[in-house]
Amino acid sequence: MKGKLSEERRQHILQDYSRGFVAFCGLEPVRLEPGFLEARVLIREEHRQQDGFIHAGLMATLADHTAGYASYTMIPETHRILTVEFKMNFLRPAFGQELICRAKVIKPGRRILICESEVYDQRPEGEAMVVKNLTTMASVPESELKKNV
Amino acid sequence: MKGKLSEERRQHILQDYSRGFVAFCGLEPVRLEPGFLEARVLIREEHRQQDGFIHAGLMATLADHTAGYASYTMIPETHRILTVEFKMNFLRPAFGQELICRAKVIKPGRRILICESEVYDQRPEGEAMVVKNLTTMASVPESELKKNV
Amino acid sequence: MKGKLSEERRQHILQDYSRGFVAFCGLEPVRLEPGFLEARVLIREEHRQQDGFIHAGLMATLADHTAGYASYTMIPETHRILTVEFKMNFLRPAFGQELICRAKVIKPGRRILICESEVYDQRPEGEAMVVKNLTTMASVPESELKKNV
Amino acid sequence: MKGKLSEERRQHILQDYSRGFVAFCGLEPVRLEPGFLEARVLIREEHRQQDGFIHAGLMATLADHTAGYASYTMIPETHRILTVEFKMNFLRPAFGQELICRAKVIKPGRRILICESEVYDQRPEGEAMVVKNLTTMASVPESELKKNV
Repeated sequence: MKGKLSEERRQHILQDYSRGFVAFCGLEPVRLEPGFLEARVLIREEHRQQDGFIHAGLMATLADHTAGYASYTMIPETHRILTVEFKMNFLRPAFGQELICRAKVIKPGRRILICESEVYDQRPEGEAMVVKNLTTMASVPESELKKNV
Repeated sequence: MKGKLSEERRQHILQDYSRGFVAFCGLEPVRLEPGFLEARVLIREEHRQQDGFIHAGLMATLADHTAGYASYTMIPETHRILTVEFKMNFLRPAFGQELICRAKVIKPGRRILICESEVYDQRPEGEAMVVKNLTTMASVPESELKKNV
Repeated sequence: MKGKLSEERRQHILQDYSRGFVAFCGLEPVRLEPGFLEARVLIREEHRQQDGFIHAGLMATLADHTAGYASYTMIPETHRILTVEFKMNFLRPAFGQELICRAKVIKPGRRILICESEVYDQRPEGEAMVVKNLTTMASVPESELKKNV
Repeated sequence: MKGKLSEERRQHILQDYSRGFVAFCGLEPVRLEPGFLEARVLIREEHRQQDGFIHAGLMATLADHTAGYASYTMIPETHRILTVEFKMNFLRPAFGQELICRAKVIKPGRRILICESEVYDQRPEGEAMVVKNLTTMASVPESELKKNV
């Protein structure tokens, strides 16, 4: 990925990551580079579904939000990221104590960015990929954010 | 949709819906028919993202889970539903006080079921469709549930 | 769908539909309205795959192209449509003598349009839905078309 | 990917690849390994769309079919592959003289296989990724192929 991230911008993005629903769910950023973000969540009982597996909705939240903030490193400070669409493939059930997501921008663009994310279930024997995700993000000037409703 | 739902099965599915992550997020079922489920969530501050919109991850949780339980009406009691994959298109930002999801099975099958869901933002001037979702579900015998890890 | 289509524009779009790969594959438009297009293809032996079913690639071509031209009715004449992404769910194999696709714009927008398409296999006993598709289209000024390579 | 491919099976799969719609479109296999297939198409005028770019439908055909035959290496000889669903993200327009697709199985399974494919536009200055694809395939006993219609 081209481009650099000022330390100030880096700190802003890392602090901005865990707000609202994402703080409620306990997601936190781990490692940030231009066009790349790794994030994680320590699994609590309330993250699971009826059969004891980690809920697909939590994994979607993790993949979408991490891809969004990976994209956020690639756009001007005057712009914000909105999710246009995403697709999740669930490779196997997740049941461990921690999930890690690695999201990268595979096509930056002035208005549209495309990201690829993977979610890994942390297991005693090593991590296992549980989700493959493709996401389309829009970069929107903050001044236009409220208009497209 | 073919098939009937015994009252006992209906009550079981309705009570089973709100457990774990789904109870944590406050989702609740509204109306259940064979191959169809409507569910809703009253929006709390912790459901929003950094710009005040309802988080895409909450909408994904609502769409995925509601499609899962709509599918659950179409399979034997000895089987369980696992999400194979889903795709979310976000038509416009959601910001209201309540979301309603309507999920229907558009192709039942012995092993694979395909669902279509829509999420509607409840606004003073009427509801607005904010998400269109397509989901592929697998029907798995409960005895095989732990094997594919 | 709001908006009208001048008869001149309508004729232009209908004639523009069947060019290049689409003419090669034999697709043709049937009915055009603002935000909606129905198109069809008469099935030839070379449209099938190794097991005698109609090839998924032909159905993808039909769904993508028809959604593109349905979108084309909603944008200025100075703009062109490019596919950002699409998703196809195959509900059942197709094997008939004709496919019909109905594509509609479910969210028009200045830069991004979202379409939903369905493909129907024409069978002696009636048509059967074989594909459900969701597509994201970009409206791009013709002058910028060559730039994003 | 675990598993081996007998030379006889390898030759069968390579010869089986280019039939029907795929032969009509001019796609051909290049390199086959267990769980992996590279294929290509030399671009002809009839592969392009109205603006001179390579048609998204041809790229979908290439990605879907190549993923299908990569999957075909991972299943018993008594089974066949059917596409359950796929998703295409178009990163940039393609306009070169040749496309190459690399498809790999990222999750083999007895009934469901998940593949990831990339399509590269061959340009004088080097290849450029133009498509990222995720596909879900079903492995179906040949004897059941006609039943699910």
